[in-house]
Amino acid sequence: MKQENLIFTPGPVKEFPEIIALGGQQTPYFRNQEFSQVMLDCQEIILDLVNAPSGSKVIVLTASGTAAMEAAVLNLVAPEHKTLSIVSGGFGQRFADICKIHQRDCSIFHPQKDDDLSDTQSLEPFSDHQALLINGHETTICHQFNLAQVGQFCQKNDLLHIVDGISQFLTDPLDMQEQSIDALIISSQKGLALPPGLAMVILSPKAIERLVPEPATLYFRFSDYLNNGQRGQTPYTPAVSIILQMHKRLLQIKSQGGIKTAIAHTQSVAKLFRKGIKNLPLSFYSACMPNSVTALILTNTNNASDFVADFEKKHHIVLCPNGGELSKTVFRVSHMGNITHEDTRKLIHALHDYFGINI
Amino acid sequence: MKQENLIFTPGPVKEFPEIIALGGQQTPYFRNQEFSQVMLDCQEIILDLVNAPSGSKVIVLTASGTAAMEAAVLNLVAPEHKTLSIVSGGFGQRFADICKIHQRDCSIFHPQKDDDLSDTQSLEPFSDHQALLINGHETTICHQFNLAQVGQFCQKNDLLHIVDGISQFLTDPLDMQEQSIDALIISSQKGLALPPGLAMVILSPKAIERLVPEPATLYFRFSDYLNNGQRGQTPYTPAVSIILQMHKRLLQIKSQGGIKTAIAHTQSVAKLFRKGIKNLPLSFYSACMPNSVTALILTNTNNASDFVADFEKKHHIVLCPNGGELSKTVFRVSHMGNITHEDTRKLIHALHDYFGINI
Repeated sequence: MKQENLIFTPGPVKEFPEIIALGGQQTPYFRNQEFSQVMLDCQEIILDLVNAPSGSKVIVLTASGTAAMEAAVLNLVAPEHKTLSIVSGGFGQRFADICKIHQRDCSIFHPQKDDDLSDTQSLEPFSDHQALLINGHETTICHQFNLAQVGQFCQKNDLLHIVDGISQFLTDPLDMQEQSIDALIISSQKGLALPPGLAMVILSPKAIERLVPEPATLYFRFSDYLNNGQRGQTPYTPAVSIILQMHKRLLQIKSQGGIKTAIAHTQSVAKLFRKGIKNLPLSFYSACMPNSVTALILTNTNNASDFVADFEKKHHIVLCPNGGELSKTVFRVSHMGNITHEDTRKLIHALHDYFGINI
Repeated sequence: MKQENLIFTPGPVKEFPEIIALGGQQTPYFRNQEFSQVMLDCQEIILDLVNAPSGSKVIVLTASGTAAMEAAVLNLVAPEHKTLSIVSGGFGQRFADICKIHQRDCSIFHPQKDDDLSDTQSLEPFSDHQALLINGHETTICHQFNLAQVGQFCQKNDLLHIVDGISQFLTDPLDMQEQSIDALIISSQKGLALPPGLAMVILSPKAIERLVPEPATLYFRFSDYLNNGQRGQTPYTPAVSIILQMHKRLLQIKSQGGIKTAIAHTQSVAKLFRKGIKNLPLSFYSACMPNSVTALILTNTNNASDFVADFEKKHHIVLCPNGGELSKTVFRVSHMGNITHEDTRKLIHALHDYFGINI
């Protein structure tokens, strides 16, 4: 496959050379002290990066982010509880679908297009619920919610605040204490810039206390992960090679100044890009954009997916088409991972060239 | 981690240099024709390697083998059906546990220690059941069943024959037609010698026909994988880097003579090892050994796990301790993946050296 293409897709993202290189080594045996230490180190750094409350734990699943969303519902939402799902796009709908499949009593709230829930008045009718499911950043449309306000609403009304932060981790603020997050879902192939295959759920002590006692799952049973996690192990064979890459990447982030440096980098890349395309026939889809990804509307044509394919062919740069209803009008550009200012300038130049507009 | 150690563990196993190298490349974007073709190629080669009946399909899950076992139960065993689980060790018990968690009506049959079910008379009381779950090779004790006979029993009585062939694929005979297998579970880190992270379920047309219509799972819903699989895609982001390695490895197997060559290699390695240790204070645990792994009893001491740790320290060779009840007496040596005759002779020498016995 064309692994020399420059990718601006929101997972996989452009990775870091020293982390990529580690993928090219023999997978070691892992049921030993040395690997346990790797796992315990990863947990410690991740908890620090998201400012998790004392006593929090990280569940490492070998699976996609969707699996972690399903696992969170199975383990944290009891069948007798009422749950609110915030649905503003494909990933919000996925949370609602998961609740339906597992026969959870789920209310659905569709926010207005540019409502980021900075005002949570509209959530008041659901204040008697026990849990709230939200995609902090609804990646299909690049719409970011005000998690601090949603968290405050949850805390005031004692709802478990369950957040899919998959495309916010390391690129946009995620702070479990400031945003009152009880369970936070992240994955390997976004800000972490690793190959896909790992999804993590970070549980606060409150979430651990409220675990469903006998969830209808073996592979996703959090209590087994917590028990094995005490000695730095997982109940089933994990994606060892990706965990070793994660370990190195987390140490890299730590040595480079931690979460603030990581977020500041992506923010500067996103700003550079958004400023650089203002003369082009492109407009922003969302009014509440995260740093991680930009959703763009093509204003001079009606075939965004054809544009993405044609642009890749001409410039060897991969952008991301949207699916479903928006596939004709919207495409996305990721700023996550190892995307540099130089890469971004290259993209801006290529877009100007494509549209025949001087920079 | 010590990636230069020679590992004889049954997953991860010793990998092939050219496949390892491919892990050291940027993960490409995958929602495109090129990756679809990789997936379709993988399916075609896997179906050929296990002699799957025409119309069979491969479900590729990003998860461990246990997840694939659970997925098979969720999708293939209806709650109203009676299922038989053959339990002779830890992995058989896992199938039974999965049935219990998902409230399946499951009978358990414990074969006698050296019974490989070449005679299926003992299964007759279960002939009214709708499905049979078996670990073709119960890896915890290296006991291999006669799948052809079990398959014949299933076919005669119209039970769905669901086989965990995880530690048999490419090392021991697995033939869906000859052994009347309806669903076959395999994974990436055994005979395929890839990093862990992928598990596959190969479904015969009969299994596809009998899929549970609304299984209580999103991530493991086979119908979604079959729909997406038609165009060579998966419903959720898969472990792309490991799939690319699998593709190269499958092409390698094909070019080297296919399944017969692969099995013959592991068989010759296992024979060399078993013959080479006859003077040592070791005896075979099982009378029905597969080619893939040898379970050994230490006859001169009562601490197998200490022996494994001490042997690794002295010789930088990693063997596999058993868990549970057998941890004091039994350990295992894998012959899967890229273990060569030279590696095996090195192990035989090291064992003689360790025990102070001339070769």
